[in-house]
Amino acid sequence: MNPTNDPALRSFIPVSADSHFPIQNLPYGVFSVRGEDNPRVGVAIGDWVLDVSLLEARGFFDSTSLRGKGVFASPSLNRFMATGRQAWTEVRTRISELLREDEPTLRDDESLRKESLIPMDRVELRMPVEIGDYTDFYSSREHATNVGTMFRGKENALMPNYLWIPVGYHGRASSVVLSGTDLHRPVGQSKADDADSPKCGPSRLVDFELEMGFFVGAGNDLGHSIPVDSASDHIFGMTLVNDWSARDIQKWEYVPLGPFLSKSFGTSISPWVVTLEALSPFRCAGPEQDPKPLPYLHRDGDQSYDIQLEVSLQGESMSDAQVISRSNFKHLYWSMQQQIAHHTINGCNTRTGDMMASGTISGPTPDSYGSMLELSWRGEKPISFPHGEERKFIQDGDRITMTGWCQGDGYRVGFGEVTGRILPAQ
Amino acid sequence: MNPTNDPALRSFIPVSADSHFPIQNLPYGVFSVRGEDNPRVGVAIGDWVLDVSLLEARGFFDSTSLRGKGVFASPSLNRFMATGRQAWTEVRTRISELLREDEPTLRDDESLRKESLIPMDRVELRMPVEIGDYTDFYSSREHATNVGTMFRGKENALMPNYLWIPVGYHGRASSVVLSGTDLHRPVGQSKADDADSPKCGPSRLVDFELEMGFFVGAGNDLGHSIPVDSASDHIFGMTLVNDWSARDIQKWEYVPLGPFLSKSFGTSISPWVVTLEALSPFRCAGPEQDPKPLPYLHRDGDQSYDIQLEVSLQGESMSDAQVISRSNFKHLYWSMQQQIAHHTINGCNTRTGDMMASGTISGPTPDSYGSMLELSWRGEKPISFPHGEERKFIQDGDRITMTGWCQGDGYRVGFGEVTGRILPAQ
Repeated sequence: MNPTNDPALRSFIPVSADSHFPIQNLPYGVFSVRGEDNPRVGVAIGDWVLDVSLLEARGFFDSTSLRGKGVFASPSLNRFMATGRQAWTEVRTRISELLREDEPTLRDDESLRKESLIPMDRVELRMPVEIGDYTDFYSSREHATNVGTMFRGKENALMPNYLWIPVGYHGRASSVVLSGTDLHRPVGQSKADDADSPKCGPSRLVDFELEMGFFVGAGNDLGHSIPVDSASDHIFGMTLVNDWSARDIQKWEYVPLGPFLSKSFGTSISPWVVTLEALSPFRCAGPEQDPKPLPYLHRDGDQSYDIQLEVSLQGESMSDAQVISRSNFKHLYWSMQQQIAHHTINGCNTRTGDMMASGTISGPTPDSYGSMLELSWRGEKPISFPHGEERKFIQDGDRITMTGWCQGDGYRVGFGEVTGRILPAQ
Repeated sequence: MNPTNDPALRSFIPVSADSHFPIQNLPYGVFSVRGEDNPRVGVAIGDWVLDVSLLEARGFFDSTSLRGKGVFASPSLNRFMATGRQAWTEVRTRISELLREDEPTLRDDESLRKESLIPMDRVELRMPVEIGDYTDFYSSREHATNVGTMFRGKENALMPNYLWIPVGYHGRASSVVLSGTDLHRPVGQSKADDADSPKCGPSRLVDFELEMGFFVGAGNDLGHSIPVDSASDHIFGMTLVNDWSARDIQKWEYVPLGPFLSKSFGTSISPWVVTLEALSPFRCAGPEQDPKPLPYLHRDGDQSYDIQLEVSLQGESMSDAQVISRSNFKHLYWSMQQQIAHHTINGCNTRTGDMMASGTISGPTPDSYGSMLELSWRGEKPISFPHGEERKFIQDGDRITMTGWCQGDGYRVGFGEVTGRILPAQ
């Protein structure tokens, strides 16, 4: 079941080829054993959670920079994230070593194994990160073009700044929730084109946005920008993000200061944070950038990652979820490193735990669009489901699930999923 | 020196008539004695800081809801703010009692007085609040009209949504700094109207924005909105806010998602948080609202506060600061209660410590505009200073100071000041 004969790439824990969590991944999360309330840091391995707070307490990380720090017995990853890249690398190496097929320390210690490895179905996952500020970018050229075409016509689809600036805006951190949290359809103002005045009521155009986000590990001080070439050192890892949106509220409110209540009713993230190190074998080129970015945004080499993404929808009366979009992170025009360099060029400080999301990830073909707005083209092309059901936007009771993974040779480095339902308005 | 013969309105501590901190005010802040590093909560009274953490430890608040809670021995007001309005009222009543001219408990206990009252010039003030999310509104109709007129002409000055929605956007919390913090001129992209492409360099159009902000005391849960009639219970108190802005960066970046780096290089706040209770004698009507707001925004009675505001500028070579704007909080079109009701109508949760700012407070006359952009009308009408100096926007070394107070009969309930300089770009 394991991909190679290199024992460093095989764990003594059996992991299937389609699992998202082989030894090549080792994503971090925060968990509590069901019925207990003692949240701490864990690492996913196959269908198990490795309790790294217990390993830390027993001294298994004393050979690393964590020695004496006690970062894992904590209800968020922030303390570990703040330790910086060198510590992250040392700890990953150590965990990888402890889980190797040919390493007896944990493998042959039944008591330690029982204590430190907990079946995934016995744990409750928590918000992995205490988020400071949340920034949402708009880095898919295809998404910006699609939305611009719908609202301003093909000729004026992309704003003049789009190919120069990794456009982004401040989001709402308080309403970022964990996968599995259901959200009520938001209430708000909207105005019909032919109406004299707006009305306040439940949004009729609730949508998802397929995004990915990353968390800032070590931040930067106010007044000091982060060069694009060292931006990777500030990225701890990535998650899936569903940036729920209410299109009718958005249309009426967003001029001139941008989206506000159309976004802040909830943003869902997946529970496992996949590190940049786990993703590094899947680096790839992003789209060619023309015009050439200004020097502070210019960087040579592969800037993106080949991460396959899928969105599915399941209505209350549907027996199965149906995939409605297949996209890929590599389609994004602007890279995470460019986003950070831009975000801090004015001296803006970032802090451990800040979340930055990509913006909707739409691919070049209609089946790869990352929102209902685009998939149904503003409702003009409803999406068909078995038994004659259709969707233009999200209906009450619909569940949206997003998943993503990098495909290796016989293994996957995956993100698990982010899922949630839209409940009726309150 | 005191306004009335009511001993409840006189303290045994001498307070001059133009002090911002008489017994009627009692604003909260966080301080440390110079040379020490033990930040805790204090209350300003005249030229003194009352160490309420010490009083709490000695049991002076045991008659209130704070009993056993220990909220003041903390480096932020958040723990106290989270206790809610009833506790705030009880504590204010108790502090007021302890400081009364005719109350011997503190007045006649020399040892306790020496321990608990520290001269203002011996303390260092800290950030009063740990801010979660920062939201910036745009609630001055005059400001929105002025900016709209400059950029779109008089006919299209106000956006169609303006008189229906308390327009706002998510701001950057990480770069909110305390009064006295100097900021470097931000670097960023801007594009001249006649240029083919943008350039990256120091902003040429750095500006201030005269605003006021409030802090959320007790928040609300995700999915539950706050009715406009109970919104006041969620407001702990107010400060002065300078929302520094880079107009050239803003112009190029803000379409379609709103201001981002043009704001996030720094936002300055004053150190003392003035409670709504201290401000209540100064409630007054705001502007008439026509059209009538939708029901969720409608509230009878006085919605605003009569708070006089002043902005001064002092260049490096100027011997004195010169007042360049005189405005008033009461000019704002949308009230704080309406801002909260709108912010949460979609179910967005707020948390203790969230900051919401008003947007630039411009009055109806040119000398009451709340930004250089408006005062100099985009640079067309430079502001004159003694010895022939002029300003269109802020130059390196310029200090901007804002102050504000409510004028009572022989006393002032004031905010102190928020001050800061713009240093050269790094």
